[in-house]
Amino acid sequence: MSSSESKFDVRNLALPHVARLHAYTPGLQPGEPGWIKLNTNENPYPPSPRVADALLREIGEHGASLRLYPNPKSAPLRDALGRLHQLKADHVFVGNGADDVLNLLVRCFCAPEIAAGFTLPSYSLYPVLVGIQDGRALVLEFDRSMQLPMDQIAASAAGVFFLTSPNGPTGVGFHTADIEAVLRRYRGLLVVDETYAAFAGEHAADLVARHPNVCVVRTFSKSHCLAGMRVGYALARPEVIGLLDRVKDSYNVSRLTQTAALAALTDPEYYAGLVRKIRATRDHAYRTWTDTLGWFTYPSQANFLFTEPRDRAGRTGPEVARSLYDFLCGRKILVRHFGSHALTSSFLRISVGTDEEMNVLQNNIEAWPRPA
Amino acid sequence: MSSSESKFDVRNLALPHVARLHAYTPGLQPGEPGWIKLNTNENPYPPSPRVADALLREIGEHGASLRLYPNPKSAPLRDALGRLHQLKADHVFVGNGADDVLNLLVRCFCAPEIAAGFTLPSYSLYPVLVGIQDGRALVLEFDRSMQLPMDQIAASAAGVFFLTSPNGPTGVGFHTADIEAVLRRYRGLLVVDETYAAFAGEHAADLVARHPNVCVVRTFSKSHCLAGMRVGYALARPEVIGLLDRVKDSYNVSRLTQTAALAALTDPEYYAGLVRKIRATRDHAYRTWTDTLGWFTYPSQANFLFTEPRDRAGRTGPEVARSLYDFLCGRKILVRHFGSHALTSSFLRISVGTDEEMNVLQNNIEAWPRPA
Repeated sequence: MSSSESKFDVRNLALPHVARLHAYTPGLQPGEPGWIKLNTNENPYPPSPRVADALLREIGEHGASLRLYPNPKSAPLRDALGRLHQLKADHVFVGNGADDVLNLLVRCFCAPEIAAGFTLPSYSLYPVLVGIQDGRALVLEFDRSMQLPMDQIAASAAGVFFLTSPNGPTGVGFHTADIEAVLRRYRGLLVVDETYAAFAGEHAADLVARHPNVCVVRTFSKSHCLAGMRVGYALARPEVIGLLDRVKDSYNVSRLTQTAALAALTDPEYYAGLVRKIRATRDHAYRTWTDTLGWFTYPSQANFLFTEPRDRAGRTGPEVARSLYDFLCGRKILVRHFGSHALTSSFLRISVGTDEEMNVLQNNIEAWPRPA
Repeated sequence: MSSSESKFDVRNLALPHVARLHAYTPGLQPGEPGWIKLNTNENPYPPSPRVADALLREIGEHGASLRLYPNPKSAPLRDALGRLHQLKADHVFVGNGADDVLNLLVRCFCAPEIAAGFTLPSYSLYPVLVGIQDGRALVLEFDRSMQLPMDQIAASAAGVFFLTSPNGPTGVGFHTADIEAVLRRYRGLLVVDETYAAFAGEHAADLVARHPNVCVVRTFSKSHCLAGMRVGYALARPEVIGLLDRVKDSYNVSRLTQTAALAALTDPEYYAGLVRKIRATRDHAYRTWTDTLGWFTYPSQANFLFTEPRDRAGRTGPEVARSLYDFLCGRKILVRHFGSHALTSSFLRISVGTDEEMNVLQNNIEAWPRPA
């Protein structure tokens, strides 16, 4: 042990708010095979075959191109996304997953004296990012009706407000007209986190052309079956994109990730087919749980369902939800339970899997020895 | 144009220090082929064949695994890096390139009232990262002798000090014994940025086991021919690693990037051969420029050289360096000129390429119509 050992404690050097942080807890990623993984809203289907083809072409025989830095701004991908959304490329930012984009937005718009707003429940990463920034959080709580708190957002002093639409973990979608009404009155930047918008009936991307104070965030993780590749993007006015460009990592998106995303965009028919399939599976499960089991389940616009299990006596609650969670876990079926908030703790969030996975799930739900 | 258009200016919402930022300027990445690229210190050789093999196995026929999130902590890679450095895995952090690691260190240890220190010249990203954090910068200027300012670092009030060793852009390496002497007296966290250490005669990774206030940062970009994949890491005590884990993105390193890095680590002989080759090429160029051309060139411990071109009259200076830069650029040879600082502006930084590329470079240097 050196002489410096005794006097040094890194916790005294770290910024106080960092030393106090708790890390975000991502959903479990079991290492061994055999699990039915309905806990992190991944797409149950593989990406378009064009993705693997493009990756193999880029890697070639020797992976020679991997020695070279990627395009620092993911410029070809920004071009392609601009065309997709009928926007110029200077309205597009590409990040190392949508989480990267959200983090950079917090860095641009949130501080100890300037709040970032979000709803509760919504994506549990927002408060983590605000904490890392030592920022102030403005939290608007939903009640069980999940009505969009339009007036409260519009009147809030938050410099930036994160609205997950469709919402997580409920899956409830908000109307674009309502979001636009908020935009007309809100004086901050409204970030519409459209992680799940591909599975919804409406989306807000068109608002970018009409409003200067909206930023729509998308990801390839769910809709394009590329959670493993880490690629998300923002659509906004060039003034907002320019800020993100100033705070991003120089080479934030790897060469193969750019390749995969570009290839995915060339096959919209494939992905439209997956979306149809996932919606059909989702809506079938919704009807089963609602009509047959009598479980309250939010109508979902996403690729997951939020359902409130009942015991034999018809009771609901955190213990009932946890009992089913544990039972499924024992059968190697992973779902998600958010136990820390009253509005979510009696529910389970269940990602929409393949029909086969959902049948196994359903059989196990029916085999569940519900608490009496 | 909506009614909100007139009243909204995003620049008024962004944090003032962010609105004032200038983005880091990465080296040019020409899109078209035919360039000899000696400007961003990439490795001129392809990665180990095991990298392409492992990537192809992971992608498989359909890229099915890409739909799943990567391991959030890159745990298998941390394990492998721990074994490589004879440290426990809890001494290892893995980031989306070393730049990600550096950024997170700034977020943990630098603030408006707590300086981050670095030398000038060194990696030009440090002041950019400090600017993004609205942090205070403590800059120690080298003179032409490039002596490590040991006393100044040790006595500084910087909470974190970034020391690039070997230095960029000069290539000068510092002695581990000197770094250790600084560590014994410095009361902050010394980050030894060893981006180029694989090409040096010494490295500081062993200090992590002996000192609580050192963090060694490495990258796969240069030594492992994987700049395109974005993977770097930190070695430090678990207290430091734990802080980085709290501020990192949840899934910061893609599935294929983890795969590529793990595969690279299985082939140390291949990479040792590349290092020998690059050092031989480097040292040959050093002798040529020093002895034959009479150009002052720093003895390099890295995979690049920093040389001061002379005109016909034997003069040096920014115009002379720029003249050669422009001439080479016209011949499709890219090198780097850092024109903004007196100590660097009369030099060019030239990455070590293949012998063939270096021969073309040499022929063009000799064809350069030097200013009279």
